[in-house]
Amino acid sequence: MRAAVFRKGDLVVDTIPDVVLQEGQVLVRTRACGICGSDLHAAKFPEQFAELSRRGGSRWTISPDKDVVFGHEFVGEIVSYGPGTTGRFAPGTMVTSMPMTIAGTTVHGLGYNPEIAGAYAEYIPLAERMLLPVPAGMNPDHAALVEPMAVGVHAVNFANLRADDVALVVGCGPIGLAVIAALKMRGVSPIIASDFSPRRRDLARQMGADIVIDPKQTSPYAQLSDSITPPGFDSSRYAALFGTGPKRRPAVVFECVGVPGVINEIMEGAPASTRIVVVGVCMEPDNSYPFFGIVKQLSLQFVLAYTAQEFADTLQYIAEGRLNVAPLITGRIGLDGVKQAFADLANPETHAKVLIEPWRG
Amino acid sequence: MRAAVFRKGDLVVDTIPDVVLQEGQVLVRTRACGICGSDLHAAKFPEQFAELSRRGGSRWTISPDKDVVFGHEFVGEIVSYGPGTTGRFAPGTMVTSMPMTIAGTTVHGLGYNPEIAGAYAEYIPLAERMLLPVPAGMNPDHAALVEPMAVGVHAVNFANLRADDVALVVGCGPIGLAVIAALKMRGVSPIIASDFSPRRRDLARQMGADIVIDPKQTSPYAQLSDSITPPGFDSSRYAALFGTGPKRRPAVVFECVGVPGVINEIMEGAPASTRIVVVGVCMEPDNSYPFFGIVKQLSLQFVLAYTAQEFADTLQYIAEGRLNVAPLITGRIGLDGVKQAFADLANPETHAKVLIEPWRG
Repeated sequence: MRAAVFRKGDLVVDTIPDVVLQEGQVLVRTRACGICGSDLHAAKFPEQFAELSRRGGSRWTISPDKDVVFGHEFVGEIVSYGPGTTGRFAPGTMVTSMPMTIAGTTVHGLGYNPEIAGAYAEYIPLAERMLLPVPAGMNPDHAALVEPMAVGVHAVNFANLRADDVALVVGCGPIGLAVIAALKMRGVSPIIASDFSPRRRDLARQMGADIVIDPKQTSPYAQLSDSITPPGFDSSRYAALFGTGPKRRPAVVFECVGVPGVINEIMEGAPASTRIVVVGVCMEPDNSYPFFGIVKQLSLQFVLAYTAQEFADTLQYIAEGRLNVAPLITGRIGLDGVKQAFADLANPETHAKVLIEPWRG
Repeated sequence: MRAAVFRKGDLVVDTIPDVVLQEGQVLVRTRACGICGSDLHAAKFPEQFAELSRRGGSRWTISPDKDVVFGHEFVGEIVSYGPGTTGRFAPGTMVTSMPMTIAGTTVHGLGYNPEIAGAYAEYIPLAERMLLPVPAGMNPDHAALVEPMAVGVHAVNFANLRADDVALVVGCGPIGLAVIAALKMRGVSPIIASDFSPRRRDLARQMGADIVIDPKQTSPYAQLSDSITPPGFDSSRYAALFGTGPKRRPAVVFECVGVPGVINEIMEGAPASTRIVVVGVCMEPDNSYPFFGIVKQLSLQFVLAYTAQEFADTLQYIAEGRLNVAPLITGRIGLDGVKQAFADLANPETHAKVLIEPWRG
């Protein structure tokens, strides 16, 4: 079958061995697969990605000297059933799944695994027991967005939202936009969003942000501080000690940039007692002053991915229109377009989410 | 009155102006005042301490060009009442207080405030409404330990303890020891404690640690991982996905060192989902890999000080013998001994907590 292969630092279209189904697996023809920011990271810094993944305990990761086929945000159509399956959905059923497959009782990652091609390929071997059929009436392409949107749903679930929270989302790439959508769904208001890119600020508005900030013009932290502070708030130590006067609302900040320096910027700028949820995946060493965290009693919750339940819930939320994903799809390409798309995605003005449609050839 | 004054980088004994009581204040003769690790920090890095305190939003901090009298862990005896007081406790009553005073409705910090001397002095002006009398039958000297012990109580309160937590305390200086005591009081078991110093490991045992580790010999993270892992635990991804087999216990780690690198060491070493409570006060920029936090979904809760309620509770816990502080007092000096004590405290083998008794002269 054809696939876009990451090989020695380059992306090439090549023919790779056809899928051989293992115990419990189903052959799925890829309809669409999103390009994830982590794919860009892995392609740009493969050695670092591999080393840190290993040090972080990940079992499936790229190896710079081996071919790898990326692709972990997918939707496809059931083609056939392998050994030890029950055939519970008819061939032709559109399905998605968490980006892993199971052979017998061994789980394999999909997307960064040199042993099993991800969905930048015509076909993928999914585990029957992990299949989620795309609900009737839902645009199947939107199911390719379940994976990144589930990251937003998970991040917001980990934020321990309080009734009166004011939220700030720092960085409005696909993950920041997913967080905004999940916050909107939960009824958080106001949602403040900050990004240097006009295109992304526009998308942030479409996804549900109430206050959208260009950090070159306005400090998002000053805005957050304003938004949590009621009229007549008494900032004196006396009022704090003896509980006089109106209280500030709680604040939660989502770090959705993933480059060094941003966590410290948030720690320095955030109001006291802010909960910071780190969703951006920073692959580099980072510098910060713990002191800012200490004097303001901040918390940092690092999050990754989602649970199986959150993944299934997210598919349902999208099907019901509770999570809006349509604005995110800004490009569609065949396998031949992958290399160019990786270059284009470096510019935030160009795209939010690009879908690879391997059947285009 | 006589005081140990921090002046141009040196500690000198000098006569400073007598206390003039303001609205609501009480004159207290210092019986004992502990030397805190933060005092050592402030004396060693005054410019950095001042700058970071300001950037962190603290209102009262040292100014390298001004004299300052440290001392925020104190107990003393009521001498006389100032204007606007009610005289609710008899002169001679032993009292402690959070390290701040109030003049009218203006709160002033005590301990790092160039305008008001802290308790490395013969007398301190305390706010009548913040006084806590030392309960009958309690050794008054132990009330000088309320402040550091309250830091431990607060840190443990912020840890959102779960019924089955296993705790690791990294660093067994006075704050680590206070955390151990608070964990013991809460019934956490096992409590693992780690420190390079034999003296501190011995104190950790006395304060309630169940497993005490020399990190030169054994990895505290390997011990933590062992302690949370039940017999027959299945570490496969399949077991995690489908919830088969026994679960690992939750883990909470207390960072009580406060020097660069320790937070990253904990992030790299800790098991997945560990909650890290940062109690150590690191005054320097720090380097870490957010990636370890991300792949393991760690949380970092930075904590500082305590609430007024926690401070009062801590006094009560000590009075009732629920928190054991006696092993912590390893030295007693007069004002003349402060300079030498600051030098001695650099060596963890020498002391845990040194009490200054200004009345010794």
